[in-house]
Amino acid sequence: MTSLQQLTADIHRLIPLMGSMGIEIVEADGGTAAARIPAAPNVNHFGSMYAGSLFTVAEVLGGVLSYAGLAAEGAVPLVKSVTIDFLRPATTSVLARASLDDDELKDTLARYAEHGKADFELVAEVTDEAGTVVARTRGLYQLRRF
Amino acid sequence: MTSLQQLTADIHRLIPLMGSMGIEIVEADGGTAAARIPAAPNVNHFGSMYAGSLFTVAEVLGGVLSYAGLAAEGAVPLVKSVTIDFLRPATTSVLARASLDDDELKDTLARYAEHGKADFELVAEVTDEAGTVVARTRGLYQLRRF
Repeated sequence: MTSLQQLTADIHRLIPLMGSMGIEIVEADGGTAAARIPAAPNVNHFGSMYAGSLFTVAEVLGGVLSYAGLAAEGAVPLVKSVTIDFLRPATTSVLARASLDDDELKDTLARYAEHGKADFELVAEVTDEAGTVVARTRGLYQLRRF
Repeated sequence: MTSLQQLTADIHRLIPLMGSMGIEIVEADGGTAAARIPAAPNVNHFGSMYAGSLFTVAEVLGGVLSYAGLAAEGAVPLVKSVTIDFLRPATTSVLARASLDDDELKDTLARYAEHGKADFELVAEVTDEAGTVVARTRGLYQLRRF
């Protein structure tokens, strides 16, 4: 298991834009993943966080799980679709968190082992510093043999 | 009507991350909007365009229409929700394009004039340089009096 600092650095290297946004992975443990992005450089000139940054901080969590409870030999995560609902403007840093329970992890890994690929769905909630839910996402991912 | 170069510069100034991604507005005429982003700096280290960049090049089109066929006194565009389907990996620059027909424009502007806000839906297609559709989005936006 890599440290969160190492995981954050790896993700910035794999996807340079994540570095530009200042994404930080703050939890990657079993079925739970969480990431944070700061207000600057992600706010627009009205002081609200840009929709694409809210998308990114939530979308990345599917990938983070492949370093945690969905880690499997040779597996890479792909994103197939995402629906994002923007509920409130965010003017602070935001935290995105999502979880799969043990049965979902076990079932996904079993399907991957058998077929070399396995879809999984992840629902994430994005909250601002006051704890207000500013966005929700539902992502469909696939764990796939590289 | 501002030029496409001016519109691109305005959007980079309003949303600095759009500048980091190298987004270029290439069409803003009546009900049609189109934008392009280059491969670098939007590809990951596997050479495929990052999901968040595909999201952004399509999501921006709702805002672009507020400078074209949905231009209205005092109106700003908000995005309420987006669903994006990732169909194929993109390894080149991509173009996103979306259109509303004249009836949709007229209806949206009439609702805005009456209520000071009007929802509108925009379906965008994102294609790579070979013309392959790599992603599709369905966005729900609101034109709102600032």
